Amino acid sequence: MSQVYDRVALIGLGLIASSMFWAIKRAGLVGEVTGYARSEATRDTARRIGLCDRVCDSVAEAVAGADLVVLCVPVGAMGPVAAEMAPHLKPGATVSDVGSVKRAVIDAVAPHIPEGVHFIPAHPLAGTEHSGPESGFAELFDNRWSLIVPHGDPDQAAVDNLRALWEGMGANVEVMDPDHHDLVLAVTSHTPHLIAYTMVGVADDLRRVTDSEVIKYSAAGFRDFTRIAASDPTMWRDVFLTNKEATLEILGRFTEELFALQRAIRTGDGDQLFDYFTRTRAIRRGIIQAGQDTDKPNFGRGPATR
Amino acid sequence: MSQVYDRVALIGLGLIASSMFWAIKRAGLVGEVTGYARSEATRDTARRIGLCDRVCDSVAEAVAGADLVVLCVPVGAMGPVAAEMAPHLKPGATVSDVGSVKRAVIDAVAPHIPEGVHFIPAHPLAGTEHSGPESGFAELFDNRWSLIVPHGDPDQAAVDNLRALWEGMGANVEVMDPDHHDLVLAVTSHTPHLIAYTMVGVADDLRRVTDSEVIKYSAAGFRDFTRIAASDPTMWRDVFLTNKEATLEILGRFTEELFALQRAIRTGDGDQLFDYFTRTRAIRRGIIQAGQDTDKPNFGRGPATR
Repeated sequence: MSQVYDRVALIGLGLIASSMFWAIKRAGLVGEVTGYARSEATRDTARRIGLCDRVCDSVAEAVAGADLVVLCVPVGAMGPVAAEMAPHLKPGATVSDVGSVKRAVIDAVAPHIPEGVHFIPAHPLAGTEHSGPESGFAELFDNRWSLIVPHGDPDQAAVDNLRALWEGMGANVEVMDPDHHDLVLAVTSHTPHLIAYTMVGVADDLRRVTDSEVIKYSAAGFRDFTRIAASDPTMWRDVFLTNKEATLEILGRFTEELFALQRAIRTGDGDQLFDYFTRTRAIRRGIIQAGQDTDKPNFGRGPATR
Repeated sequence: MSQVYDRVALIGLGLIASSMFWAIKRAGLVGEVTGYARSEATRDTARRIGLCDRVCDSVAEAVAGADLVVLCVPVGAMGPVAAEMAPHLKPGATVSDVGSVKRAVIDAVAPHIPEGVHFIPAHPLAGTEHSGPESGFAELFDNRWSLIVPHGDPDQAAVDNLRALWEGMGANVEVMDPDHHDLVLAVTSHTPHLIAYTMVGVADDLRRVTDSEVIKYSAAGFRDFTRIAASDPTMWRDVFLTNKEATLEILGRFTEELFALQRAIRTGDGDQLFDYFTRTRAIRRGIIQAGQDTDKPNFGRGPATR
């Protein structure tokens, strides 16, 4: 793989940025990668584990001379960070991000981008329930989708370079419109996360079923919800606050369907339940055929261990 | 491991029965295991893959002389099967089951159990999204919980033998009251399954987001719901029809919480969202510490493959 950028700055050093760094190194895509995190503890950790070629103590220092700056902070922090770094950006540089919401990021970041700097938003659809600088790994993006979500009149060369970087990190790239992105993600990610958080919260809250029962007997389905509901709280707070409309729309559809199934349970309509449960199997088959999940039972998890 | 029963009959040859057979063989727990399935195709498959020492063409033949008969059919079929086998049960035998609901199974099966036969309901909390005679494997119950749910005045020796069988198959055993069982399972299994089915159904139903988008971009959270929603439709229809009250109660709590979070999104109450999302992490840690799930990112699934 040939080098795509001379210098890349990663702002915010959590799961995504650290995975990007290891994926960039694996393929030799960038000459030098600088990194910045607001927290001194995170910067210390990054230095200790060799995350980034150079960890900087300020945004200004990190972005100085960078051909690409990637905002890897929670969506709600992107506007302030963009304002802070704007005066220090190299003319002709590209600014991108990895936020889970795109319209709100464009609204928050675009006004700060100086003339002559390209802003090309993006969103890699990959992650785990772990967070922080030590949670990253080079394979995170392999055969996952990374969406490039240009706005306005994007510079084609800047888009092509960003695509080359993501492909070099192992991802498949598609271009998508911001509003459609936010709706698709409300379906495939945001609403499922809210539902998982809610179900885990309900279990934790019940007085008649103890937490220890919930934990012991979680393998019957519940534990999968707990993995999703262990994701980073700051990131997810910001997602829901900034993708409000699409999330509320999908939540409305969800509760409508849930009430229909609830009614089928109450009235004993077995045919409706059976038909519904049969239909949903097809989507699972599609996901496995598309290589986006394993067909191994229980995701290939081994037996439980003590 | 020493032999627990001379002869065991497995009625219904799906995921659970086939896993029981392989786990029994692994530990040499039973002299002879007979099996019966209503479908001739299932019996043919069982004979082909060596599932059961002897596959029988009738319930009567399968249970004749058995010291333990385990009903491994969907919950809604247990009453009729119990009625059919009752005249052929050996005096002093034990009848058990593996149903996901216990009160309804007791109500349906107990009236058919002849004098001198012990009925000791049970429920192994283990499964996968796959079903049928070829989906079983010996390790399914390893370090999972199997609940023994006695009713009335159970014979202690019969309970002890059943416990020894489950422990021999790798499970941890606890005894639980039927109504409490049905409530606990409504939390840890039944409601999560209904929610997963609903979310997948909503995604499938939307006109503005295509199925192919849902499938391609599923790795962002949604795919975990599709695994649960790929479970056996007949089994799950029967679960909801027979554990109606507890499921509706937990669903009511769930929608109440969901509406509270929905309101927090609508009003932009980030603190409430953040606090909620922080609290739910603790349960995940408990599950991992209890050895009921892996701490590997994404359940240790490897990178996606084409």
